[in-house]
Amino acid sequence: MESNDLKKLIAKDILPQTQNWSGTERFLMAIVDLLLRYIKEENDRSSKILEFHHPAEMLKLVDLSIPDQPESLEELVKDCEKVLRYGVKTGHPRFFNQISCGLDLVSMAGEWLTATCNTNMFTYEISPVFILMEKEVLRKMWECIGWDTEKSDGIFAPGGAVANLYAMNTARHSMFPRSKHLGMKDVPTLCAFTSEDSHYSIKSAAAVCGIGTDNCFNIQTDSTGRMIPEALEKKICECKKEGMAPLFVCCTAGTTVYGAWDPIDKIADICERHRIWLHVDAAWGGGLLLSPEYRYKLAGIERANSVTWNPHKLMGALLQCSACLFRQDGLLFQCNQMSADYLFMQDKPYDVSYDTGDKAIQCGRHNDVFKLWIMWKSKGMEGYRQQINNLMELSAYFTQRIRETEGYELVIDPPEFLNICFWYIPSSIRHLDPKERNARLEKIAPKIKAKMMEKGTTMVGYQPDKQRPNFFRMIISSQAITRDDLDFLVKEIVDIGESL
Amino acid sequence: MESNDLKKLIAKDILPQTQNWSGTERFLMAIVDLLLRYIKEENDRSSKILEFHHPAEMLKLVDLSIPDQPESLEELVKDCEKVLRYGVKTGHPRFFNQISCGLDLVSMAGEWLTATCNTNMFTYEISPVFILMEKEVLRKMWECIGWDTEKSDGIFAPGGAVANLYAMNTARHSMFPRSKHLGMKDVPTLCAFTSEDSHYSIKSAAAVCGIGTDNCFNIQTDSTGRMIPEALEKKICECKKEGMAPLFVCCTAGTTVYGAWDPIDKIADICERHRIWLHVDAAWGGGLLLSPEYRYKLAGIERANSVTWNPHKLMGALLQCSACLFRQDGLLFQCNQMSADYLFMQDKPYDVSYDTGDKAIQCGRHNDVFKLWIMWKSKGMEGYRQQINNLMELSAYFTQRIRETEGYELVIDPPEFLNICFWYIPSSIRHLDPKERNARLEKIAPKIKAKMMEKGTTMVGYQPDKQRPNFFRMIISSQAITRDDLDFLVKEIVDIGESL
Repeated sequence: MESNDLKKLIAKDILPQTQNWSGTERFLMAIVDLLLRYIKEENDRSSKILEFHHPAEMLKLVDLSIPDQPESLEELVKDCEKVLRYGVKTGHPRFFNQISCGLDLVSMAGEWLTATCNTNMFTYEISPVFILMEKEVLRKMWECIGWDTEKSDGIFAPGGAVANLYAMNTARHSMFPRSKHLGMKDVPTLCAFTSEDSHYSIKSAAAVCGIGTDNCFNIQTDSTGRMIPEALEKKICECKKEGMAPLFVCCTAGTTVYGAWDPIDKIADICERHRIWLHVDAAWGGGLLLSPEYRYKLAGIERANSVTWNPHKLMGALLQCSACLFRQDGLLFQCNQMSADYLFMQDKPYDVSYDTGDKAIQCGRHNDVFKLWIMWKSKGMEGYRQQINNLMELSAYFTQRIRETEGYELVIDPPEFLNICFWYIPSSIRHLDPKERNARLEKIAPKIKAKMMEKGTTMVGYQPDKQRPNFFRMIISSQAITRDDLDFLVKEIVDIGESL
Repeated sequence: MESNDLKKLIAKDILPQTQNWSGTERFLMAIVDLLLRYIKEENDRSSKILEFHHPAEMLKLVDLSIPDQPESLEELVKDCEKVLRYGVKTGHPRFFNQISCGLDLVSMAGEWLTATCNTNMFTYEISPVFILMEKEVLRKMWECIGWDTEKSDGIFAPGGAVANLYAMNTARHSMFPRSKHLGMKDVPTLCAFTSEDSHYSIKSAAAVCGIGTDNCFNIQTDSTGRMIPEALEKKICECKKEGMAPLFVCCTAGTTVYGAWDPIDKIADICERHRIWLHVDAAWGGGLLLSPEYRYKLAGIERANSVTWNPHKLMGALLQCSACLFRQDGLLFQCNQMSADYLFMQDKPYDVSYDTGDKAIQCGRHNDVFKLWIMWKSKGMEGYRQQINNLMELSAYFTQRIRETEGYELVIDPPEFLNICFWYIPSSIRHLDPKERNARLEKIAPKIKAKMMEKGTTMVGYQPDKQRPNFFRMIISSQAITRDDLDFLVKEIVDIGESL
């Protein structure tokens, strides 16, 4: 009988280096036990979201150093316990800080299985089921967009920023295929266009691709954060006059701060007129395609050449889960193919058109599809419809509470999505003249936020914008949220704000 | 008492949408039970590595479609069971097919915890412990390389190909910072150099960055697969004469096919002479830095400007776990910073220099460090030393077996690392003249491989190279491998090869 005393065992005493199953099982069950307790506590609203410590203190609480000698399995379990204790519970029902939040337990179970399978998405040879699954899930996403599923393409990418990079790189290849071989010196000066409220990864992609951030133009938005189509067309014409080649327009479906919707149809008309690649960054808003009631906000998306859609945001999949989708099949492969002989041989015993590796910028590619697939099965199309409609209703409820409660002011009224931006103006500064009030207001949100983190009761993000002082950006995307949680936040901010 | 009958429950009947803990626990434990059985079976050498099916058959065996109505939790568990059954067991002790393989159970437990925490690596605010942990692990990696840990930098990237892209992009910024804003039109024609045996992601990075694959020159290798320094310098001089600006030399430490080591010191001399950025792609070979006995193979790596090192390869971390390391602090930030106000505010209640988001090309970034940290703790420096030395000994043992066994021939003798490339020449073709024999040999490895997959007993990769017919590439990187497993493979290939 082999020992299963975690105090006495180290990693090499269990599988795969020995056949000590009893010790292996006991170690894994000790970890599972910790994780289940964590999940239970995270969903208990009276538990703290975080126990805040400054970096220097935190370093004293957890020993992060790599030792010379192995730690026992018992010590490892204790390490895990500490890491869980001092982390931030992003799945807590009162965590409203980030666009990606909540912990869907089916998706999580899927990620546990993904870890255990530990495979790579480049060939059917080593990932037969997951490769077919990725294709099937992509097919469903194309269908939601409204594309011909026989002619479309796509790939799962590590996050929306990389998905946007895929899109820009593919757009360039589509218009100037010689750039792949000869580089940017051999093509006209390219330029791209995106709204001033769009995600910074569009500029980042322009920098990486060698287009340059200065050639990625910010187009003005209206008072609700939507790109102004006339301003876009004007800028395109100016660029053409200056001899530049307009390559890429990014239309944002659900902006990061305001949750605004650029008018896709109007922008698509302009792109068609000028023959420019239309990309829709629906990283955040894409999930709304699953609601027949609200998908009108993305009207025209089927006209896009490419779409970024992150199931790890509105759909609630675990991070990372992000897709870059293309209306035209074949481009992704032509753009990224490097023909590595040792991976993508043509003399394999199966249909090698299933091998996806040569489509990717990545070589090793994590399996991001399983956690999405199993979660989607767990809800069905109807379950998602209800979940997303419910979030939209909660957003309307919260907006109404903000409107009605003294001291609050909406930044944009009405909000168009699940981002609700607002100020809380403590009674002590309400009487001040606007200029003085705004100067004081700039410091209110950071102070309230710091206090929230110290108390650990809730978390919500804040930021300034170009003309406005710091305001809160509430995000309602976790399926754990109830009206009571929203009421709690409204009251908590008042309580903290008045105590400053 | 709420139901915990998985037949009757759907996802929205458990946490976080209800407080039904009993149902939640039962569902999660059903999944854990499946995973534990899978792990036990995978480590049983008599179990099959895979049950091969062609794509069309596979689609009949697993229903991949997304339903309209939710599936019950019981059905989901069954889905998971099927996915496990039809996948490839990459952690099986006789899976030798890929550079990243084996299933370290401590790393896997770490990934389960990572999934449950479901957080994002952009700020200390939401990932306090993991952000500090990333820094500590990077520090250890800098130390292994031999850099000043007060002046170095780095980031975990989604795979080695993206790490190489980070390196090339940063090299460009370091030499031509105006390219970030003005693009490649505004800088000289850049070029890069890498050995003809290097990984294809270097060319891919050149394509993405707008340098162009034709401006990424393949430098000749010697008969053992090492870059020839004189050939490199000659090409650099030619490029300069033609008015190009040599930007980037990639020196491979452990090539993908042969496991060859480019001579870093000699190449570093050339880079210093010509003021070119030196990148060492040690994605595969980096782990050898943990062995005092073998680290001499990477002599000179401390002179590199950047290093790619994938712990998901030799160190055995779960995929994805890949680091891009920089000798000079600050560059990564200057290169990738886009100053998004809503994430990286300066008025937070803690030292914001810990926020890593503005260093990354990615916005959302998966936590890839925890599974590495906990695994490294479980072994300590000494455990890794033993593990890696043991793999090197197994490699020598296998090489000797190949040398001694009739019908086998080594492609490169002696192999320099854990890749052993060889042919098996069935007795029926041994007598043929070399030309005819090679023509027949081209088809032998694919046939043996197909038969292996059909039998499901073992898996090993094969590929051709520019002048040689298809050969096997054996990879010894899983800590589960024993001498018996290697003996098994030697015999299995003979048995299959003679039966063709």
